[in-house]
Amino acid sequence: MKEVWAVIRMNKVTQTKKALIEKGFNGLTAMKVMGRGHSLRDLDKIPDVEDKHEEREMLLESMLKGGRLIPKRLLLLVVPDEDVQKAVQTIIEVNKEGHSGDGKIFVLPVADAARVRTGDRGEEAI
Amino acid sequence: MKEVWAVIRMNKVTQTKKALIEKGFNGLTAMKVMGRGHSLRDLDKIPDVEDKHEEREMLLESMLKGGRLIPKRLLLLVVPDEDVQKAVQTIIEVNKEGHSGDGKIFVLPVADAARVRTGDRGEEAI
Amino acid sequence: MKEVWAVIRMNKVTQTKKALIEKGFNGLTAMKVMGRGHSLRDLDKIPDVEDKHEEREMLLESMLKGGRLIPKRLLLLVVPDEDVQKAVQTIIEVNKEGHSGDGKIFVLPVADAARVRTGDRGEEAI
Repeated sequence: MKEVWAVIRMNKVTQTKKALIEKGFNGLTAMKVMGRGHSLRDLDKIPDVEDKHEEREMLLESMLKGGRLIPKRLLLLVVPDEDVQKAVQTIIEVNKEGHSGDGKIFVLPVADAARVRTGDRGEEAI
Repeated sequence: MKEVWAVIRMNKVTQTKKALIEKGFNGLTAMKVMGRGHSLRDLDKIPDVEDKHEEREMLLESMLKGGRLIPKRLLLLVVPDEDVQKAVQTIIEVNKEGHSGDGKIFVLPVADAARVRTGDRGEEAI
Repeated sequence: MKEVWAVIRMNKVTQTKKALIEKGFNGLTAMKVMGRGHSLRDLDKIPDVEDKHEEREMLLESMLKGGRLIPKRLLLLVVPDEDVQKAVQTIIEVNKEGHSGDGKIFVLPVADAARVRTGDRGEEAI
């Protein structure tokens, strides 16, 4: 089993939820988060050498001022190993606009699951 | 070490917290989430064959309209491997009402932990 | 890859975010949580023997009344294995005040990652 984490735009939740349901992913947990992606790519383009130090500092300062965390949504779903790719692809298809901020997906291992109502364990419970 | 995730009803947080403390589980993190369980079971009962296609579509549509995510609480606690079953059973005992929506529990592996105050690492830190 | 979880004081988020950015950790997700650490240490000092039973019960009762969860912030960042120690140390340096409530850090294994915009997978995506 794996837990699929998707940090996506707020306005994509309903569409993503619908696409996941249509693919058979029923259980879903969503939460409000604040996120920031790799808007620092520009910084990496300035080598961290002595005569570039001030330039880096200025850019960093500017980014810190503007680099506020913005509201995103985190969707969580636990799926059998064989369904991870389908879940990830479904989320990418709905959320890919080709812009920075489209989102990130992480896949975490899950050791066990339990359904409270029945006491079922393992994949039976998800 | 494992991280035990429990998605439970809002009105069960205090009772669950108390039961966990009484069993010696002191560290606890709680957060507001929106959750939806397997209310789609009915859909699975309709085979995905051609002459049932319209019936499935109608049920799906109806579920999507009514299938709003509802507020739940996510409780997180990190415990030594040998205490996972005790934590899971404690949460089940408090939350099991025999109804859909009683909740789900997931157990995720944890590679390391640190206590900020002391710098302690590993199980010492949880 | 690992997912570093840091449960820290609300008033430490900006400083922690800045320190992480300065160390090259760009991607960050933050969320509001309610947390409680080991304020139960006092309980452990009272042995669970018969003539101490009432004393333990009273302390537990008092703690349960007063042991409300307090607002904290959960910071999440996914980093390559070789950067875990740097991330953990950075968070400890900013948040260590030597008091209970300084925070906890957990390190969870990550099986895979995906960047929605590009479809990049694995470490390329974080």
